Amino acid sequence: MMLAALDGEAAVAEIVEREDGLITANVMGPAMYLAPFRRWPPHHRAAMRLVRGRVLDVGAGGGRVSLHLQERGHEVVAIDNSPGAVEVCRRRGVRDARLLDFAEIDESLGVFDTIVLLGNNFGLFGSSAKAKRLLRRLHALTSEKARILAESRDVSGAPGADAPWHAEYRRRNVERGRLPGQIRIRIRFRTIVGPWFDYPMVSPAEMREILDGTGWHLARTIDSDDTYVAVIEKTV
Amino acid sequence: MMLAALDGEAAVAEIVEREDGLITANVMGPAMYLAPFRRWPPHHRAAMRLVRGRVLDVGAGGGRVSLHLQERGHEVVAIDNSPGAVEVCRRRGVRDARLLDFAEIDESLGVFDTIVLLGNNFGLFGSSAKAKRLLRRLHALTSEKARILAESRDVSGAPGADAPWHAEYRRRNVERGRLPGQIRIRIRFRTIVGPWFDYPMVSPAEMREILDGTGWHLARTIDSDDTYVAVIEKTV
Repeated sequence: MMLAALDGEAAVAEIVEREDGLITANVMGPAMYLAPFRRWPPHHRAAMRLVRGRVLDVGAGGGRVSLHLQERGHEVVAIDNSPGAVEVCRRRGVRDARLLDFAEIDESLGVFDTIVLLGNNFGLFGSSAKAKRLLRRLHALTSEKARILAESRDVSGAPGADAPWHAEYRRRNVERGRLPGQIRIRIRFRTIVGPWFDYPMVSPAEMREILDGTGWHLARTIDSDDTYVAVIEKTV
Repeated sequence: MMLAALDGEAAVAEIVEREDGLITANVMGPAMYLAPFRRWPPHHRAAMRLVRGRVLDVGAGGGRVSLHLQERGHEVVAIDNSPGAVEVCRRRGVRDARLLDFAEIDESLGVFDTIVLLGNNFGLFGSSAKAKRLLRRLHALTSEKARILAESRDVSGAPGADAPWHAEYRRRNVERGRLPGQIRIRIRFRTIVGPWFDYPMVSPAEMREILDGTGWHLARTIDSDDTYVAVIEKTV
């Protein structure tokens, strides 16, 4: 999808299919994934001021974060589990872009000072239990003053959250012991159908519970309506 | 989908799923289905000059054709097999909008002077065999000087037609005795999944073969790149 957007194809939309059959077209997505810094939403730009040192860009997508931070002199490792995304990153000049699932990161990548997960990518931590395991591992792969900058969304207050197809989905999630905003989705583009994956959206309170006991805590949030970038730091 | 578009919801896209898994988002569709005459493409406006008498608007959608022709003083019957579309037609002021599948039309609707199938809706005739049967029935339901104004598309010359996912699909269609441009699709919106249906797109030559022996012939075409409105008249 991003390759098509990069090639300038018109009306490239990201199709998101939720496990209950809800299907949506993210029309702005592909352009946003390639957007230069000046076109980013203000809370994304603000988050960049908190980046320091060596950076891991998780779910790098079109590479916009990596490209911006490289320009500012940071050493950046971009990872994505989509071969097409990695190709787009490389074609656009990301120096170290790797095809790698977030859950597969290990010490071979070296030590990071900042982990960036913009664009709702806190969801890439997966379910609450998986997130806790991965946060503990990240603790060992990062420097003492490391920060995680991870975007999420408080779905209970989101516009349209009271639509029956969303309210019912949250209710069934809670029934099954999932986070209310834990969507299971897959991405489709043309004849390509991605794998199903869990992509939770959490409130700051829910995030605090996930962070509890991992060695990390929520230092503050940078808000933009129902969306926010969590500034996550190590607990001394 | 059209109800959502009518209610002014942002970024309403029509999701089209083809039986081979190709999935696309028609971003302009919903707005186009509600567009006033002045925003129609020129070949649609030109086709309206050929309308006379009592009109059947097939696959009326958001009712734009029916509303325009009503304003010009025509008696119009709008049919659509989507309950939401019929509701949109009624809310927008279409005086006679009915929930009816094109294949189910009969003499209870009265006699028509013009049948309109804009927006690729020649495809609503279905497969070649179904189209021939329906054309013969339409012959009996129309006046002597009746016209069918039906839009279709010559897929062999369409932009992007040589993309592998389209070329392969055409090849398999021909292998199975279908028209090359005979797509089998379903429409999705939110959690609504429509039924699969055949929606052929044909060249003028293919259309002539379908019309052969039905009492109708292709009098002329109003062209717009690979798309055209066929002006179909009775063979004396």
